[in-house]
Amino acid sequence: MSHTIDQAYQHLKSVLTDQGVDVDNVEARLKAQQIETPSWGYADSGTRFGVFKQAGVPRSVYEKFEDAAQANKFTGVASSVAVHIPWDTVDSWTELNKFAASLGLRVGAVNPNVFQDYDYRFGSFGSERADVRKRAVSHMKDCIAIMNAVGSKSLSLWFADGTNFPGQGDFRRRKRYFQEALSEVYAELNDTQTMLIEYKPFEPGFYHTDIADWGMSAALCTALGKRAKVLVDLGHHLPGANIEHIVAFLLDAGLLGGFHFNNRKYADDDLTTGSINPYELYLIYSELVAGENDGIASDVAYMIDESHTLKNKIEEMIQSLVALQSAYAKALIIDRGKLFQAQLADDIVGAEEVVKAAFATDVRPLLWKVRSELGVPNPADPVVGFRQSGYADAKAKERGIGGGGGLGA
Amino acid sequence: MSHTIDQAYQHLKSVLTDQGVDVDNVEARLKAQQIETPSWGYADSGTRFGVFKQAGVPRSVYEKFEDAAQANKFTGVASSVAVHIPWDTVDSWTELNKFAASLGLRVGAVNPNVFQDYDYRFGSFGSERADVRKRAVSHMKDCIAIMNAVGSKSLSLWFADGTNFPGQGDFRRRKRYFQEALSEVYAELNDTQTMLIEYKPFEPGFYHTDIADWGMSAALCTALGKRAKVLVDLGHHLPGANIEHIVAFLLDAGLLGGFHFNNRKYADDDLTTGSINPYELYLIYSELVAGENDGIASDVAYMIDESHTLKNKIEEMIQSLVALQSAYAKALIIDRGKLFQAQLADDIVGAEEVVKAAFATDVRPLLWKVRSELGVPNPADPVVGFRQSGYADAKAKERGIGGGGGLGA
Amino acid sequence: MSHTIDQAYQHLKSVLTDQGVDVDNVEARLKAQQIETPSWGYADSGTRFGVFKQAGVPRSVYEKFEDAAQANKFTGVASSVAVHIPWDTVDSWTELNKFAASLGLRVGAVNPNVFQDYDYRFGSFGSERADVRKRAVSHMKDCIAIMNAVGSKSLSLWFADGTNFPGQGDFRRRKRYFQEALSEVYAELNDTQTMLIEYKPFEPGFYHTDIADWGMSAALCTALGKRAKVLVDLGHHLPGANIEHIVAFLLDAGLLGGFHFNNRKYADDDLTTGSINPYELYLIYSELVAGENDGIASDVAYMIDESHTLKNKIEEMIQSLVALQSAYAKALIIDRGKLFQAQLADDIVGAEEVVKAAFATDVRPLLWKVRSELGVPNPADPVVGFRQSGYADAKAKERGIGGGGGLGA
Amino acid sequence: MSHTIDQAYQHLKSVLTDQGVDVDNVEARLKAQQIETPSWGYADSGTRFGVFKQAGVPRSVYEKFEDAAQANKFTGVASSVAVHIPWDTVDSWTELNKFAASLGLRVGAVNPNVFQDYDYRFGSFGSERADVRKRAVSHMKDCIAIMNAVGSKSLSLWFADGTNFPGQGDFRRRKRYFQEALSEVYAELNDTQTMLIEYKPFEPGFYHTDIADWGMSAALCTALGKRAKVLVDLGHHLPGANIEHIVAFLLDAGLLGGFHFNNRKYADDDLTTGSINPYELYLIYSELVAGENDGIASDVAYMIDESHTLKNKIEEMIQSLVALQSAYAKALIIDRGKLFQAQLADDIVGAEEVVKAAFATDVRPLLWKVRSELGVPNPADPVVGFRQSGYADAKAKERGIGGGGGLGA
Repeated sequence: MSHTIDQAYQHLKSVLTDQGVDVDNVEARLKAQQIETPSWGYADSGTRFGVFKQAGVPRSVYEKFEDAAQANKFTGVASSVAVHIPWDTVDSWTELNKFAASLGLRVGAVNPNVFQDYDYRFGSFGSERADVRKRAVSHMKDCIAIMNAVGSKSLSLWFADGTNFPGQGDFRRRKRYFQEALSEVYAELNDTQTMLIEYKPFEPGFYHTDIADWGMSAALCTALGKRAKVLVDLGHHLPGANIEHIVAFLLDAGLLGGFHFNNRKYADDDLTTGSINPYELYLIYSELVAGENDGIASDVAYMIDESHTLKNKIEEMIQSLVALQSAYAKALIIDRGKLFQAQLADDIVGAEEVVKAAFATDVRPLLWKVRSELGVPNPADPVVGFRQSGYADAKAKERGIGGGGGLGA
Repeated sequence: MSHTIDQAYQHLKSVLTDQGVDVDNVEARLKAQQIETPSWGYADSGTRFGVFKQAGVPRSVYEKFEDAAQANKFTGVASSVAVHIPWDTVDSWTELNKFAASLGLRVGAVNPNVFQDYDYRFGSFGSERADVRKRAVSHMKDCIAIMNAVGSKSLSLWFADGTNFPGQGDFRRRKRYFQEALSEVYAELNDTQTMLIEYKPFEPGFYHTDIADWGMSAALCTALGKRAKVLVDLGHHLPGANIEHIVAFLLDAGLLGGFHFNNRKYADDDLTTGSINPYELYLIYSELVAGENDGIASDVAYMIDESHTLKNKIEEMIQSLVALQSAYAKALIIDRGKLFQAQLADDIVGAEEVVKAAFATDVRPLLWKVRSELGVPNPADPVVGFRQSGYADAKAKERGIGGGGGLGA
Repeated sequence: MSHTIDQAYQHLKSVLTDQGVDVDNVEARLKAQQIETPSWGYADSGTRFGVFKQAGVPRSVYEKFEDAAQANKFTGVASSVAVHIPWDTVDSWTELNKFAASLGLRVGAVNPNVFQDYDYRFGSFGSERADVRKRAVSHMKDCIAIMNAVGSKSLSLWFADGTNFPGQGDFRRRKRYFQEALSEVYAELNDTQTMLIEYKPFEPGFYHTDIADWGMSAALCTALGKRAKVLVDLGHHLPGANIEHIVAFLLDAGLLGGFHFNNRKYADDDLTTGSINPYELYLIYSELVAGENDGIASDVAYMIDESHTLKNKIEEMIQSLVALQSAYAKALIIDRGKLFQAQLADDIVGAEEVVKAAFATDVRPLLWKVRSELGVPNPADPVVGFRQSGYADAKAKERGIGGGGGLGA
Repeated sequence: MSHTIDQAYQHLKSVLTDQGVDVDNVEARLKAQQIETPSWGYADSGTRFGVFKQAGVPRSVYEKFEDAAQANKFTGVASSVAVHIPWDTVDSWTELNKFAASLGLRVGAVNPNVFQDYDYRFGSFGSERADVRKRAVSHMKDCIAIMNAVGSKSLSLWFADGTNFPGQGDFRRRKRYFQEALSEVYAELNDTQTMLIEYKPFEPGFYHTDIADWGMSAALCTALGKRAKVLVDLGHHLPGANIEHIVAFLLDAGLLGGFHFNNRKYADDDLTTGSINPYELYLIYSELVAGENDGIASDVAYMIDESHTLKNKIEEMIQSLVALQSAYAKALIIDRGKLFQAQLADDIVGAEEVVKAAFATDVRPLLWKVRSELGVPNPADPVVGFRQSGYADAKAKERGIGGGGGLGA
């Protein structure tokens, strides 16, 4: 097998080199891009119709990090882990930091939770009640303290705030509440820390959501300052939205903060990244590579945010990481000179053929090479590698069912 | 107030009479149409982000019926209650029947649940495992036994069956599993009982749903026999679907079994009926009235199915009932002769003006009259009537928080 | 009839007065709000499947103004007319101005056309070719000269620019072309003139549109200066977009420039305003009235933009104007004090009932009163009034078929 | 180059053979599947905002066939051409047949046009006017006569019938008009001919379309008889529809008649097949291959229907044919045994990995081999082959601009 795949790699490398691709550079970039996985992605989660608990799910934040280390082990590019507060609160952040480091990991973005408590049922920053808004601000400040403790650079904000019925809330008043509260939190960040503001059109609010689209998020960020940026969750758009266009627009405006990767067919389905429309993922990456090439995409946070309901959670995370690397690899081998010339000539077919050709390329041998050099076990197939490791069965025995709570669990 | 509203009623009646409307007939039909409310609509429910439990929520099926009696008391048209098995299982159905009767209620449609148990996580009738399919069939048969015990005429079926990822399931094999299992259940029904089959495009399956649209439901019904009919849930359509057209098509084909009323803006939002697009609700009722006039809509089951997350559940039910009566009333006063003539003449503006005129009419005085004659307290405003009754506060004290489980609770 | 409607009006007035509504103020505002109709709305138009030409359609811009005068005559609130260049180019703008004045009209917004000519097939401001961009800028400057000649205050910009396929265009480069060209045009406006920038998600571009959503429009406006504002076309949103929320957000940001009213069920259907979802129109107006009450909605341009394919064009325009006045009237009688109190108390049902009550009110008697006082013939029913006038038949005879070109005609 | 690609082919073949794929069979099937191109796809077309005429577009049906022969020449699998009546009416069908044969082509499906004439502006089979319905039936019968003359096996029906406004039409009455008229046409077909009935949710009707979804089409087909089948146009669905599921359902019901291939992002965008979501196209083909394997997909008509607005029309057709062959090739190499086992085991990840692996494979070498054996010039890249042939330039000179009319041209 490795003989065969090495042949395939040599063949691919020679074809790409003939096309003018700097394969070494491509491989270097594939090794360098780290994708953050979310602690809650290893926990039980479900839909409003129920959560089906799995055996082996982590019982503590430490066990979540153990699982995250597996995702990193079999891909080589997932060395940081986002935490969710209070779900991941620990007694000693120093201890967690050390534990993470011992697994080759570090703590990434800190995600406050201002939607789960009863007090927030009518909103957090958008609530009519000053005490509720104050409580949410205070929670955010606690999260910044955690950032300082663990050395995290990103405060990643998602708000469930919204309404279900016309008349329920006053759009403009709520907008001003948001501006006020965000300012107070923003002031607490230091110069090396970034506030990421996520948007979402609906759910759990089914009539309006206070930060409903990238435009609202961008307007709030612009008012705050240059360390506030927009977070793009791939599932948080209305049907048909051209996400790669939004990404390019944000890049050009200096407002792209990062991603929550996942995939969707209908609503915020939170499926495995690349599982429904891999071409869209590739087109998004094409914008990111173009941004990197132009030096305007260096600070983008790459994070996964999915809701693994029935698949094994580590396997799904590995699938997502592979899909992201595959999209990145294909975007890196686009013949951009040829594309540029075709665009200048209004040669639509020519331009499209360039984009399609890179996507048609089977980049698995390239990813095998990258993983091999990163020392990943079973570099040809990370999912199979993980399966063969016996980790899932071992943990199912060790941890049992009903371990830890994630969304709705 | 009642003086004023009586004046308004007299004025409206004279205007309508001048237009040729048989107001007595309209009122008689408004009194006659019963709308079923769901037992689970009185229980706690929420979204995948959490359930906010309310004080006063029923702790038993008996208390759910008590609440349903309130919805009926303040509207006069909600005398039956759908039950959900096993949520509403009782020791003695005879006792429940008696209790219901003592409240002026009766047990309506029986709704099996084949989605909540762990065994059903990969499907029920669509499962690859024969034992799971058998278990689901067996549960349905138990539900038919309950129908026989309580005198229910409708077995109301919704299936969560579907998949999240391409490849996960075999569409055609699952279809045949469904046909087989449905046949076995259908054979158990007696001649006076109907099987209602609901469809839904997505959620909780985010890639495919086995019964995804009315066409799939209709195909299954047609294969079963004439006592299998399609159930239309207003929230179970893709964006833009013309529901009134589907309703008319089903009516003409003899396949319309009934409704699950609610409203939506985005997905299956399960909001209060008429809260987002009351004109659409009216246009649906316009088809139903036309069907009644033509004698082909006599067997339609009118049911509400909503997920009351933050509103008081009885109030939301009353709002829905009022919205339905309002839509029905407006549909009943459409000048159908004039509409017909305009259609024949291809007079688009003329036809539309007829439809718009009925909708523009303020029918609240008419509904006041109908409720007055039904002996409803505070017939001018059912929500206010219920609020003034003090029932909610009394029950909050009596029952406390965390009473009973509904969806996700 | 007028006796009856006067009774209805007296009844409604007394009910509203009892509720604390200042009916005189409501009527004054209904008389004051002028809605602009588009010259091209009186011309033939169709779909890509064909244009069905109508008898009596105007053969010149002068005849378009004659038709617009009819829309104004039967509603009393449509005294300005938007023009489209070059469709409406005349030899003497002074003469057109005089003619308009003689009909009780004035020239409103000037709409450049940078999408119809062969040169623009790959874009205008977004084109890769500097000469094409220059030509488009030059056309805009000509339009500003026309604004100066006719005393118009709004340059209303819609761009068809976009691409059909991935790779066809470079998002960021096109964005910068837009910024550059817009700046050049903006510099030409004087202090009393406004640039309105429209957005649209798709069509005629089916992969991306350069100004795809309100956020992109707002970003461009913000970069230009305070006389650049966002134009909201009700048909230019993805399925589910909460337009009233966008309107409120823009109002709060000082970025709402105006509207292109119409209605849609699926895409940019360009149907009669209020014909598909009158409740949404009312909720949009509710935000506008709130903005007026707070003194932040004084400069909003109210314009209709529809594509009348089969209806008589003047009748459809009258229907739209009536729908707008109806929505405005209902929004004006919302009990805002009660709404505010319910919102403060997180009383969702209470707040919603306030909003629903105003919508349920039959405001036709109020509009009759307003039109009566404006001296409109047949104030009870503008469509019937127009029909009875015999204008349509007379013009059909006079003008014949195939008169003038609008979109695609 | 051919050396390199042969190496790639040998490598791919050995990899696939190792996986148990019968490569010879795959190649044989790739050679056997013929895809029909539409005569109107070679003509000018556009959007409602205009048609940009291209140089070299055919001036007659004969020239359309010449262009279709180019699409066939460079792909080897497009030997039949659908015609549209009356656009393609000729004096002698025998002569056209001979001409087609001389180019290696044959006449495929006959497509009546009952939407373009003024008489059809309010509908064809759905019109309230008996004379209009009769005219449409008569036109269809003429089309069947043409089928008999040219030896065509498919009458391919698309109806623009629908309404723009609530009230405009009576859904049920129009449905019955349709049933009646379709029956009359169906009776005219002989035993070897099939009626294909297309559905579409909207456009040009923007409120309702008489045959709005596959369910309505299927219901009409079922009532007609077994030679009436559903035609699936990939662009004719609401956002999110799972087309591969619909295809499987229709296959299982014996109701799948064929396809109109194209692609979409928003509405009926009519873009190049495979240009927006190639994974969806592959998943559709996966169902077709499964159907072929089970012997239930032998009679499916594969046709392209796109609206080439700015690309060179022959190039776009070639792109589409390549995309279809690519999807077919990938679907043919799915490891179905492994997929079946994973499905039985509820191994979601395992099943999905099988489906993803085939899609990740670069099948261009396989298609090169197939085209080589079919004697196609430049088998490695059909678009480049066509470009190098000089055909487009030659025809631009010969035919000039404004040659022939297609949709809206």
